[in-house]
Amino acid sequence: MSRTNLQVLLANRPTGWVQESNFRIVETELSPLGAGEVLVKNQYLSLDPYMRARMDDVKSYAPPAALGEVMVGETVGVVIESQNPQFQVNDIVSGFLGWQQYGISDGSNLNKVTVTENLPTSVYLGSVGMPGVTAWVGLLEIGKPQPGETVVISAASGAVGSIAGQLAKSKGCRVVGIAGGKAKCDYVVNELGFDVCIDYKAGNLVADLAQATPDGIDVYFESVGGEILEAVLARVNTFARIPLCGLVSQYNEAQPAGLRSLISLLFNRVTLQGFIVGDYADIWPSIAQQLGQMIASGQLKYNETIAEGLENAPAAFIGMLKGQNLGKQLVKLA
Amino acid sequence: MSRTNLQVLLANRPTGWVQESNFRIVETELSPLGAGEVLVKNQYLSLDPYMRARMDDVKSYAPPAALGEVMVGETVGVVIESQNPQFQVNDIVSGFLGWQQYGISDGSNLNKVTVTENLPTSVYLGSVGMPGVTAWVGLLEIGKPQPGETVVISAASGAVGSIAGQLAKSKGCRVVGIAGGKAKCDYVVNELGFDVCIDYKAGNLVADLAQATPDGIDVYFESVGGEILEAVLARVNTFARIPLCGLVSQYNEAQPAGLRSLISLLFNRVTLQGFIVGDYADIWPSIAQQLGQMIASGQLKYNETIAEGLENAPAAFIGMLKGQNLGKQLVKLA
Repeated sequence: MSRTNLQVLLANRPTGWVQESNFRIVETELSPLGAGEVLVKNQYLSLDPYMRARMDDVKSYAPPAALGEVMVGETVGVVIESQNPQFQVNDIVSGFLGWQQYGISDGSNLNKVTVTENLPTSVYLGSVGMPGVTAWVGLLEIGKPQPGETVVISAASGAVGSIAGQLAKSKGCRVVGIAGGKAKCDYVVNELGFDVCIDYKAGNLVADLAQATPDGIDVYFESVGGEILEAVLARVNTFARIPLCGLVSQYNEAQPAGLRSLISLLFNRVTLQGFIVGDYADIWPSIAQQLGQMIASGQLKYNETIAEGLENAPAAFIGMLKGQNLGKQLVKLA
Repeated sequence: MSRTNLQVLLANRPTGWVQESNFRIVETELSPLGAGEVLVKNQYLSLDPYMRARMDDVKSYAPPAALGEVMVGETVGVVIESQNPQFQVNDIVSGFLGWQQYGISDGSNLNKVTVTENLPTSVYLGSVGMPGVTAWVGLLEIGKPQPGETVVISAASGAVGSIAGQLAKSKGCRVVGIAGGKAKCDYVVNELGFDVCIDYKAGNLVADLAQATPDGIDVYFESVGGEILEAVLARVNTFARIPLCGLVSQYNEAQPAGLRSLISLLFNRVTLQGFIVGDYADIWPSIAQQLGQMIASGQLKYNETIAEGLENAPAAFIGMLKGQNLGKQLVKLA
């Protein structure tokens, strides 16, 4: 049986903000499976800020996405054909199969998902997947928050920030979120239980942050960079920790903003540590299992913004880079 | 017996480069000792880059130096009168007695020096004192260099950098110094045994650093900031460590240069950690003892630039900030 596959290719590299014209949507025929291969029907595609960096032709923690090839991205789906004894039809798998309806894999980049009862498979791309594990590693392994400390979370309503902030609350910290707009801030405080959330778009970031952190800042979960980082560095306590997970405010800038407050790291003996969750493969399964239990029990809450259909992935991706999503941004493929 | 004390006061705060007019030299009468007090005749005054930051009226890791008061600084000297049972006449002591010929102390800020045979007391302000312990803590406790790794040392001919680089060599690392001028670079390679030294004043910093670090950079001992830090961040390997000890290139700038390469910390999972040696008081004596043995045995080499007489301290300090010294900058007081 021949099947048609819908794919989103990287057509050309953006300069500044991503445009829909950077992508090209094509229909191709799926080739028959070779020995050892698996055919996966993707259910959800994850859209994540790191993808913006991969669209540039620069050294990153991974090679750039290739021009004319399927755009890189993580998916969750169901095995519908298998020539690989490790995977059976109807297995639920996650993996980096890219922006397409179907993926063929030799199995090396697939993980079988142990589905927790009552949880939709989409969570394995969000709170129980890469973003959730990123939040755990950055906050707990690098940030090491202690009870009573003040933790500030940038992109607080996002897939990573929302989990990081709830984990910090569970450690007995004062948790201050930073998000864009009143709706996101209301969600962060009222639904996720942060102590306070600052709307950076309200124009009073420096004063609002000072008011929200009367005892200074001990841990800053950094996904954003730019003026928010400057404002935080003016408030850090001695021996503060800054897990550096992303710099989304900088990805679309042709010239990065210079960090002016570097000297605060010296005066306050701050540790700023870049990290990539892929480096923590050894503890990933254990973390994902704990996150799954906390999500299933309702101890951790999450939200998803779901676009319908692969053809809407480019617009959804651009919207996410502009902060239009609430929680994890996904595309539903089937 | 009444004694006249020569003192250097902070007269006003610099804007940009320090001027001699920022200081005022005065003669005062020493008051008689009170109960529990000690009179120290200072032999050497240490001049250090951190003093520049203390001259500004801004939050630092210590309060700013006070206007009209004796300028802050570390000294080594001999006890010549004592009303304190913990100190005897002829004891050699180090402490923060400031820019003056004599200091009176209640003993709380004095450390008795266990003099190692054949070493001049000046080393307790340099390679066996604060700069040496700073080098040890930054390189070994934070940088954690492994055999075969590449270590880059800024201000390589200075009091801290010269020790840090020699310690890195003793750990089996490839050690690349950065210093200003051919004479300093020759000293760093020929006398201190670094593998190579880059003269940043030669105008080819980026290309020279690339040539000197064919396997990238694993540890960067940072005392300088600015363009040298940018050049290093373009060459760091994954999981590089950057102990941040100073930003001397920035202290005299009204507006700090922005750090443009922050994203390299993310992509390469770099840890940048500010530190102050005073936070390591618990391990300081053990480190100083080991440094003393390594200096006495000739395993570690050091150099000193010694100005004669307190009245020349301001000019010597300004010269040090401009990099005119080789090794530890001292003022001989007696």
